[in-house]
Amino acid sequence: MPDNNLQLDESGKLRHFLSIEGLNQEILTEILDTAESFTSVTDRTIKKVPILRGKTVANLFFEASTRTRSTFELAEQRLSADILSLNVTTSATVKGESLLDTLQNLEAMQIDMFVIRHQDSGSAYFFAQHVRPGVSVLNAGDGQHEHPTQAMLDMYTIRHHKKEFGNLRVAIVGDILHSRVARSQIHALNLLNTAEVRIIAPRTLLPIDAESLGVSVYEDLEAGLKDVDVVIMLRLQRERMRGALLPSEKEYFRKYGLSQERLERARPDAIVMHPGPANRGVEIESSVMDGNQSVILQQVSFGISVRMAVMSMIVGQSGLQTGTEA
Amino acid sequence: MPDNNLQLDESGKLRHFLSIEGLNQEILTEILDTAESFTSVTDRTIKKVPILRGKTVANLFFEASTRTRSTFELAEQRLSADILSLNVTTSATVKGESLLDTLQNLEAMQIDMFVIRHQDSGSAYFFAQHVRPGVSVLNAGDGQHEHPTQAMLDMYTIRHHKKEFGNLRVAIVGDILHSRVARSQIHALNLLNTAEVRIIAPRTLLPIDAESLGVSVYEDLEAGLKDVDVVIMLRLQRERMRGALLPSEKEYFRKYGLSQERLERARPDAIVMHPGPANRGVEIESSVMDGNQSVILQQVSFGISVRMAVMSMIVGQSGLQTGTEA
Amino acid sequence: MPDNNLQLDESGKLRHFLSIEGLNQEILTEILDTAESFTSVTDRTIKKVPILRGKTVANLFFEASTRTRSTFELAEQRLSADILSLNVTTSATVKGESLLDTLQNLEAMQIDMFVIRHQDSGSAYFFAQHVRPGVSVLNAGDGQHEHPTQAMLDMYTIRHHKKEFGNLRVAIVGDILHSRVARSQIHALNLLNTAEVRIIAPRTLLPIDAESLGVSVYEDLEAGLKDVDVVIMLRLQRERMRGALLPSEKEYFRKYGLSQERLERARPDAIVMHPGPANRGVEIESSVMDGNQSVILQQVSFGISVRMAVMSMIVGQSGLQTGTEA
Repeated sequence: MPDNNLQLDESGKLRHFLSIEGLNQEILTEILDTAESFTSVTDRTIKKVPILRGKTVANLFFEASTRTRSTFELAEQRLSADILSLNVTTSATVKGESLLDTLQNLEAMQIDMFVIRHQDSGSAYFFAQHVRPGVSVLNAGDGQHEHPTQAMLDMYTIRHHKKEFGNLRVAIVGDILHSRVARSQIHALNLLNTAEVRIIAPRTLLPIDAESLGVSVYEDLEAGLKDVDVVIMLRLQRERMRGALLPSEKEYFRKYGLSQERLERARPDAIVMHPGPANRGVEIESSVMDGNQSVILQQVSFGISVRMAVMSMIVGQSGLQTGTEA
Repeated sequence: MPDNNLQLDESGKLRHFLSIEGLNQEILTEILDTAESFTSVTDRTIKKVPILRGKTVANLFFEASTRTRSTFELAEQRLSADILSLNVTTSATVKGESLLDTLQNLEAMQIDMFVIRHQDSGSAYFFAQHVRPGVSVLNAGDGQHEHPTQAMLDMYTIRHHKKEFGNLRVAIVGDILHSRVARSQIHALNLLNTAEVRIIAPRTLLPIDAESLGVSVYEDLEAGLKDVDVVIMLRLQRERMRGALLPSEKEYFRKYGLSQERLERARPDAIVMHPGPANRGVEIESSVMDGNQSVILQQVSFGISVRMAVMSMIVGQSGLQTGTEA
Repeated sequence: MPDNNLQLDESGKLRHFLSIEGLNQEILTEILDTAESFTSVTDRTIKKVPILRGKTVANLFFEASTRTRSTFELAEQRLSADILSLNVTTSATVKGESLLDTLQNLEAMQIDMFVIRHQDSGSAYFFAQHVRPGVSVLNAGDGQHEHPTQAMLDMYTIRHHKKEFGNLRVAIVGDILHSRVARSQIHALNLLNTAEVRIIAPRTLLPIDAESLGVSVYEDLEAGLKDVDVVIMLRLQRERMRGALLPSEKEYFRKYGLSQERLERARPDAIVMHPGPANRGVEIESSVMDGNQSVILQQVSFGISVRMAVMSMIVGQSGLQTGTEA
């Protein structure tokens, strides 16, 4: 599926943002650096820059979302964009239009950038293949494929706390098999030369090609957490229970839930992350989630800066230009 | 229903935009000319003008809509308006308020302009009759009565491709009887002195007073398409099938669907239009819709400029003022 | 529940706006004066000031609302805020997050101000207790507790027409027991030293501690209306009928409905108010609602100015600063 030329133009600049797979270390580092310049913006009293002034961004969420959608909308407002938010589950396709018809009709409204979340893997690529030159597509989660802005805000959070990736051990725990977040994280951590990436999951939630992803595989949580610098817990989709892939929530917590006691296997300065929304008491104990190693709420904050960064780079601005405000 | 004085003020300027019926050639031409000045705006990098800055527009959609609602919202944003969008189906009248109470309460919020789509014919007129002086109403579709901004974007598209109306033959094909779009188009084409307006439909979907509309009536599609310059296909409301007015979709396509072969009856440079969303394979063949005579997506684009034009004229600005941007 | 220090900072400035109870006459008067400066803003052609420019306001409506939500959104737009409106009934908590998790995640998005309506009494206080320093909470109605911005727009309306509170007799009629509006109004009228506050209701809709509220209690409408300057009718929640607290709508109107005839018991220049949406023919006769003593639609208009005032005071601006516009 990944087609590098689709995401990058001839000179290697970002044109769409569809997947971490197919990008390179330079682009990822540029995103992190650009986001850093916006973090100071969001801390100032006035949080607005005119980078997308007069541009229109359409948010197409075919799947419900609060966190991702809200942070995208705030990022767009802070970049001074015009915004068209469509709750597509209930509106756009009601009259039976195909996805391509929906895309083309919106494109005819002179949309400059599409943010799309869709239940089908590959949908963001499909959009990017069909938009006109000059129009960009950002993947806000496509099926079980990728969720690249989530992975980049996770990388930002890790770099913020740990500075360098080269010496880090990072563990990703939970339903790796179905997680677009995990898939994007693994690619990003590898591109950034993380020393060791571990995935920890029951056998039924491990991808078949796990080893080929360039990771170490653990079925035992306590062994896998040993001496790691970063613990990333994944959300347990409760529907997996019904799918017979898992016994019960209680049993899951007993074997794969992150408790304070288990966290002590990791390094004393290890940070705990979660893409949210977390199931307290299922994949993570409340006291860990609210504890002083948790950086879960920071992830949300950084999500705005990272999304501002990606959108800015796409319109050709790397980092915050000093100058007049919108 | 049409009351000219309601739409035009004493000096003939546009006050509300409720129906094409009751307007005149000068106003229609002014709308097209003003829209043309905005088309260049929407092509520029920065797509914003301050014409509605500090004004508030309320979008009241009592019927679902993606295309019309989105293009109105984008037009309002590009004019720098404050925007209040209410999904009235689910909110405003839940507590049992009447339409007039809803109107008066919103008006008390110092709304400057109402955009209303409602299932009842005459609802936009009802609103216009009850708002205070200085408040304007735009009809975004009222029952089976009119959809005047749609007709004007269609006129814009025709003029864009054909320059003059005086020598044109235009065919409107489909469910004329129930179509507010067709009704508005017929009035507009006549006011602009189109040489010949044809309506093509099965007898059950023809209005009883068809001849009195100043059009030629055809029940045979191929005869009706002969030598026309413009073909406007209407959306087939599938609920008509259940109403026994029509046999089946397949049968409808066989008799009234626009195929490539049939399109050859028209002039070689004929353009094909559709207000959308189209039923591919029912009223129009996919290859025609995507073919090089189709201008269907252009209609959507022009819809933004036309809606900007109408709103600008209502606040007293004809055409784009050069000057500072919002 | 009221904790003065939560609403006011050390120097007595407004920090949150949660309940009228716990505030003082100075703050209430400052709100009214500040709102007055915004009323002229909303009458001007350009209705925008930059007081909240670069600030983000999140509107969290856990209960449906058109009037309150729309006037808050318009107030925010006129103050040039960035706005995040979440229909929380359908989105934020779908994945099972607690209210506190929802709050903390939104707060991590650098929200400066929360406007919250929630079915639980005390929810706004709960939010205010948990937000970080510098983040403010406005109560847009919490259970049966308070609805303080509604009360302040009512006070504004009364002062606009009657100038002083010291000589006024004000009657509040209807379901006092369950009404957060009435509770806030009673506190506000008392803080502003209203000469006499009367509550008029059937015994089943009177609070048990009615006398302790500093009001006169009437079960007979006609006696209670005698010589009052202001009549405030409350909305009758139809669900009370099912709860056996009330006989029938017809019977309710016969005993507690405000008719033109009954209104004559009040002073000839008495004004009639209602927070909306009104049930015509249940608690109020249509002719009274639309009559020349009714100021019901003015209440809606003033609601925007009052909400602008509260938000401005919270960010440290009392009244409209002359200067550049947004």
